[in-house]
Amino acid sequence: MFAPELLAKKRDGHALDDNEIRDLFAAYMAGDVADYQMSALLMAICCKGFDARETATLADVMLCSGTIVDLTKIAGRKVDKHSTGGVGDKVSLSLAPLVAACGVRVPMVSGRGLGHTGGTLDKLESCPGFNVGLDLDRYQQLVRDIGCALIGQTREIAPLDKRLYALRDVTGTVESIPLIACSIMSKKLAEGIDALVLDIKTGRGAFMRDREKARELGKLMVAIGARANKRVVAVLTQMDQPLGAAVGNALEWREATAMLRGDGPADYKACVYALAGEMLVLGEVARDQDAATRLLDDAVKSGRALSKWREIIKAQGGDVSYVDAPERLHPAEAIVPFTALKKGIVHGIDTRGVGLLSVRMGAGRTRLEDKVDPAVGLVIDKKIGDRVESGEALGYIHARAKPAANAFAEEARALYEIGDGAVSPPPLVLERIAT
Amino acid sequence: MFAPELLAKKRDGHALDDNEIRDLFAAYMAGDVADYQMSALLMAICCKGFDARETATLADVMLCSGTIVDLTKIAGRKVDKHSTGGVGDKVSLSLAPLVAACGVRVPMVSGRGLGHTGGTLDKLESCPGFNVGLDLDRYQQLVRDIGCALIGQTREIAPLDKRLYALRDVTGTVESIPLIACSIMSKKLAEGIDALVLDIKTGRGAFMRDREKARELGKLMVAIGARANKRVVAVLTQMDQPLGAAVGNALEWREATAMLRGDGPADYKACVYALAGEMLVLGEVARDQDAATRLLDDAVKSGRALSKWREIIKAQGGDVSYVDAPERLHPAEAIVPFTALKKGIVHGIDTRGVGLLSVRMGAGRTRLEDKVDPAVGLVIDKKIGDRVESGEALGYIHARAKPAANAFAEEARALYEIGDGAVSPPPLVLERIAT
Repeated sequence: MFAPELLAKKRDGHALDDNEIRDLFAAYMAGDVADYQMSALLMAICCKGFDARETATLADVMLCSGTIVDLTKIAGRKVDKHSTGGVGDKVSLSLAPLVAACGVRVPMVSGRGLGHTGGTLDKLESCPGFNVGLDLDRYQQLVRDIGCALIGQTREIAPLDKRLYALRDVTGTVESIPLIACSIMSKKLAEGIDALVLDIKTGRGAFMRDREKARELGKLMVAIGARANKRVVAVLTQMDQPLGAAVGNALEWREATAMLRGDGPADYKACVYALAGEMLVLGEVARDQDAATRLLDDAVKSGRALSKWREIIKAQGGDVSYVDAPERLHPAEAIVPFTALKKGIVHGIDTRGVGLLSVRMGAGRTRLEDKVDPAVGLVIDKKIGDRVESGEALGYIHARAKPAANAFAEEARALYEIGDGAVSPPPLVLERIAT
Repeated sequence: MFAPELLAKKRDGHALDDNEIRDLFAAYMAGDVADYQMSALLMAICCKGFDARETATLADVMLCSGTIVDLTKIAGRKVDKHSTGGVGDKVSLSLAPLVAACGVRVPMVSGRGLGHTGGTLDKLESCPGFNVGLDLDRYQQLVRDIGCALIGQTREIAPLDKRLYALRDVTGTVESIPLIACSIMSKKLAEGIDALVLDIKTGRGAFMRDREKARELGKLMVAIGARANKRVVAVLTQMDQPLGAAVGNALEWREATAMLRGDGPADYKACVYALAGEMLVLGEVARDQDAATRLLDDAVKSGRALSKWREIIKAQGGDVSYVDAPERLHPAEAIVPFTALKKGIVHGIDTRGVGLLSVRMGAGRTRLEDKVDPAVGLVIDKKIGDRVESGEALGYIHARAKPAANAFAEEARALYEIGDGAVSPPPLVLERIAT
């Protein structure tokens, strides 16, 4: 294998053979292909594309670069969910205990917030004591004993993906649908799952703003799953406004906990149910979405969902007392409303702007080494299609101090687009992609 | 400046501003942009292009990364010629003394052979003692005192180009017309020239096989010259068969010397005259190509061209005795013909194959650190359109030993395409591009 020749092949728009892909990336891991060669290849992939076969092969190479957890000795179906990220996306926090309470095992390896979106690990850690840094042995134990484990990526999982991601981050090669698909799927396939539900968010607050591209990503990931003999269902969901009301770590933890009790915003519940329903079907405990909905409703009403949440929190070292008194979890010192300047209908929300504002408030990171502030964030009251009066609260800023809160409130107000005509709230579930 | 953002900008097909180009490459020279970022940018340029303005700016950044020789204190016009490389391209060896003999100064910085083509420096060095490693002071002295200097690229000239070229070589990013144009023009503009003639070779033995691409390269280099206030004329010349008869270092030196005496192949002379003529016009000693031809003829017939050749060789430490007895220069131990297996007309010659064969015989390098063998090579007797009898010599192999020579002869024979119908020799000068 002569690396420059393979780079030139991709540069000229040709597909690489499976062996060429395997050799190149193996040589990279062995140190025989340099970072400056790999970055040139990644750029060529961004510019000239990577077809479904090439993408599946690279995902497999990434997967095989590390440990693949074997959960086959644990009875029952193991099904995970992964989201491409949005604003107020706290789905995993209520979905995991809910699905586990219905008898499907949920082995979930999540990430931290980056860019304008929050991360599941940061939200979980807002509960004091909750440890997401469990090793793979403990992870397997929890999946076996309580049916769920919520951890972060360990060193053993897909090390090639880690190296490539770090390189992509500094070489302008992050925005490539095939590379994103490989990165996600290699990590998910390493978890030991039987099946996977993908939540591909699209719209103003998503990484994939464009629906066409979101669909392409979904199709590619479903195809990678098929090649690995895993059933994968991708659901395209709308991210034109924050999901639910809470944006910020403890605020979202509280909203997720409320949902498990049967409370909380309807759109958030609808999103959780749509994805959890797919998991129950793939997990072979429900025949279809209607049957799944009945199971989910029952898990909430019976209190089993909330019990499972307590069980998970306890097993991972968290303080369960907050489950019954969520308002005690990192209350903000200053809460101020941001209000409408005129009467009208909410026509739109700059959702990416909401995410970026929450990051600047301290809820997210601009660098990987930053610490997040669990207390701060926004609570969105008015959503698209809602009628507002002049001076009425659109939502609330939760901040550390009053002056800062007032300044953030001004910014938050500017993210709302208020007009005259009636508009319908956008549909939540847009498309479903499966093999 | 945030490098990944600029890389993403080029990845998405947008043009970079002049300041962005200057900042990026300055940061690279300063060590603040890493090789793995630069290689990704170079790949993005290969894939998404670099427009004339961007290319001219990068050429200027490369030029300004090192010393720009100032020859303005030396009287007379300084005009150089550069070729994109072909097989048997010994044009510079006779063109430089010929043009200098006509009163135009020729400051020439040349390269070594790489790939399937030979290099001017290697050919010059086949004359014992000839030193191409003169420093820039001595170079200026020679341009002033004898009107010509023939040297290799020094450390001071365009160091950015040197670093980028080394990186391109290992990252599959050599074949980019804008990057090739920048690389050539930055070095040429550093020589202190007033004007430049470019010989863009196209056809089976050229790097730019495709005429359309050769034209694009020519136009781009003429435009870069215009932005630097230099008159540049590009001539597209045919490289569908070796130029002249000799392919190999001493063999080509001998053929170039013969030409200065008025001997040698007609196509080689025609090529030298076409390019030298342009130089005389740009050098303001001839009104047009016809007047230039008369000057060139006179320089040859009067012996002034050959005298200038002796003068250059002497000034650069070479042994002038070979000028009058060129056959003494590195005669090969074994000379064997390669013959036609059937009677017919030469329809084509795999010219790149001829170049690669000469490299394998030892006339060129496969790695920069290889030594070349001055003695070996081929002499082409039959060219496109020539009639041959079965068993007649197509040409001769010059090698170190008989058994090797016989094996090479077999290979050389296979590079000839002999057919039945008559074909015309291809025209030599194809197009002329000027501002």
